Amino acid sequence: MVKVGILGVGTVGESVVNILIENGDIIEARAGRRIVPVIGAVRDLGKARSVDIPLTDDPMEVIESTDVDIVVELMGGVEEPYRLVKKALEEGKPVVTANKALLAYHRYELQEIAGSTPLFYEASVAGGIPIIGALRNGLSANHIESIKGIMNGTCNFMLTKMIDEGADYETVLAEAQELGYAEADPTFDVGGYDAAHKLLILGSIAYGIDAKPEEIIIEGIENITATDVEFAREFGYEIKLLGIAKKVDEGVEMRVHATMIPAGSMIAKVDGVMNAVSVVGDRVGETMFYGPGAGGDATASAVIADIVEIVRGNTGPMLGYKKGLESGMKLLPPERVRSHYYLKLKVVDRPGVLAAVTSTLGEHGISIESMLQKPSRLTDRVRLLFTTHECYESEIRKAIEALRSLDVVDDSVGMIRIEK
Amino acid sequence: MVKVGILGVGTVGESVVNILIENGDIIEARAGRRIVPVIGAVRDLGKARSVDIPLTDDPMEVIESTDVDIVVELMGGVEEPYRLVKKALEEGKPVVTANKALLAYHRYELQEIAGSTPLFYEASVAGGIPIIGALRNGLSANHIESIKGIMNGTCNFMLTKMIDEGADYETVLAEAQELGYAEADPTFDVGGYDAAHKLLILGSIAYGIDAKPEEIIIEGIENITATDVEFAREFGYEIKLLGIAKKVDEGVEMRVHATMIPAGSMIAKVDGVMNAVSVVGDRVGETMFYGPGAGGDATASAVIADIVEIVRGNTGPMLGYKKGLESGMKLLPPERVRSHYYLKLKVVDRPGVLAAVTSTLGEHGISIESMLQKPSRLTDRVRLLFTTHECYESEIRKAIEALRSLDVVDDSVGMIRIEK
Repeated sequence: MVKVGILGVGTVGESVVNILIENGDIIEARAGRRIVPVIGAVRDLGKARSVDIPLTDDPMEVIESTDVDIVVELMGGVEEPYRLVKKALEEGKPVVTANKALLAYHRYELQEIAGSTPLFYEASVAGGIPIIGALRNGLSANHIESIKGIMNGTCNFMLTKMIDEGADYETVLAEAQELGYAEADPTFDVGGYDAAHKLLILGSIAYGIDAKPEEIIIEGIENITATDVEFAREFGYEIKLLGIAKKVDEGVEMRVHATMIPAGSMIAKVDGVMNAVSVVGDRVGETMFYGPGAGGDATASAVIADIVEIVRGNTGPMLGYKKGLESGMKLLPPERVRSHYYLKLKVVDRPGVLAAVTSTLGEHGISIESMLQKPSRLTDRVRLLFTTHECYESEIRKAIEALRSLDVVDDSVGMIRIEK
Repeated sequence: MVKVGILGVGTVGESVVNILIENGDIIEARAGRRIVPVIGAVRDLGKARSVDIPLTDDPMEVIESTDVDIVVELMGGVEEPYRLVKKALEEGKPVVTANKALLAYHRYELQEIAGSTPLFYEASVAGGIPIIGALRNGLSANHIESIKGIMNGTCNFMLTKMIDEGADYETVLAEAQELGYAEADPTFDVGGYDAAHKLLILGSIAYGIDAKPEEIIIEGIENITATDVEFAREFGYEIKLLGIAKKVDEGVEMRVHATMIPAGSMIAKVDGVMNAVSVVGDRVGETMFYGPGAGGDATASAVIADIVEIVRGNTGPMLGYKKGLESGMKLLPPERVRSHYYLKLKVVDRPGVLAAVTSTLGEHGISIESMLQKPSRLTDRVRLLFTTHECYESEIRKAIEALRSLDVVDDSVGMIRIEK
């Protein structure tokens, strides 16, 4: 019998406990031993929980109990779980965590502390989809060329609604909040931070890169309008919030932002709250992993898969590399990212304006791929929409500044990156 | 250093050798040790091969060499590789195989012989997609409710062409043969046998069922016409060759056949030679794994992933279960499969015929869900198309026999199963 102690018994923790009990026979058949939840630590002992295990409000009681073989961390937050996971590893106890924020900041310290003690985290990225295992084990023969993931269900739900129904951002946000898909303060999801934490974890496994959230481009979907969605379609694209990690000549790009992607691509077909991660390997070509990215049972499915792996005696390496990478792949700074861009301008409706705009773009080295002019709701304005050939992020930013400073261009210049 | 010997150095074997050399650094970083191909066995030493390792025409030389740590079997066939893999395992050497036919017939004997010696086979199902790992490890907390896989690229390429271009079967088969996607004798692919071998392997991991090809429904796409494809669309379906394993109250259904599936479902969007496997778990919900199902490099990617796992010290269990399943899930015999069905009849165009047909269906307990009448190319005939509510395979077969015996119904009654 293997005994599991759980730090944080919220939605996911409850599911872990209940699945370990309800699916106990089949899990035992697969793991070779019975896996039993024996204790949970919670902040508020007064709150009702639908689990049938003893609870404590002292997490150290779980970690130090001689009765606990494996510690599962589902608390959320960064520094407090870091302290506790560290403690458990120092006690020599294997740890399973679903905590992406913890890993976004401390994964390399934790790998160091863990040593040969298993520290597994399948549930931290894309919930129930076994993407960590696929990337760490299944694709290990490949140089990873790119990862493109829809890793935030809230954003994908909202964008799908905007695409299918032509609804605007505020309306779909309200609907997402009503359905429980978005928090009262939705910033963490719609601002791209949640997806960024996940991307950093995948970036480590693919490239061995220790990047922090502060070092990469993180943008959300707050500025996407129904108009963008409609215009994207005219150019043959759909808009998704993607986490992108990509190997290029100079290094590795990592970024999270709303992205226009070809409407026919497999990942563009992923709708609603579902997640998917497309991984291109130099040998395998494109693979894609699709499934539910959140929810108590789906996330618990991944947590328990990790527990089973530990019970089976499989160990790691935690971040995918047993030895350091000799190739020394490096994160590219945000300004060195290269992309195609979509630009949305509102300009004064009079002769010479288009010339002024296009020559400003030309002066900044931006080459136009396609252009569309649309009437604006304001009678004295028109909308200009461009897609560009590939250029550096630094170039497009300077060009946008220059466009803004033109008298004939309104201040709000919209920009969305395009992945072909 | 870990030394690999390869039985069968064809397209996949050449890729394995070349990737181990060309991606050697990153594979070493991930595995912790250098992995080196040292010898290959081939049938015909006279044939030119683009690999830089010594070759022999005696497979036992590879197996018995003290220089070989891991044996990779890529020969194809059933009994000869069985004998050799058995020999290697008896020598205590870990084996990696891509041979689905071998496993379709001998996986349980091999599991027994292997004992604690690793026998891995990620490449045997859906080529480069790490579906074995996902199912065996990533979804281990779940009772698997169903598996639905597009696992034969030849068939999917052909059906996609028929759907997109309205082309007929003979035309697309010729095109597939020209492109090298189909063999001169295409039976193994278009008859569903290749997909069936893969399904049996997945069925073991999901349900612990030791079924043989002879025990399940195996049908191909040879009888699918452009008309079926067109009519499927009118009912809101696409036609795919699916391998299906599904837990129902009475046991586990396993079957391979052309299937109508809702056009909006994720797996219906998988086009061309690509493969995908949708797995529904009772806790995780639907996950799907997509990628290239064939090709030298893609298949080699999976072979090498297995080698890396062995080098890392991970072992199994080979077929997903460390202990026998207490629940004792059983394969349902083909006649107990339940499905919705599509029926295609050509009937004499005169009053009373529709009544005769529908009452025959009614007498056999078949309940009609939808009906369509279409003109036929023959002036004295009309086409009747039905979809039915769920019934047993035995019922629909008897009903089809009865329909055929009616004077007013032409002999060739078409049937395609429908998965909602």
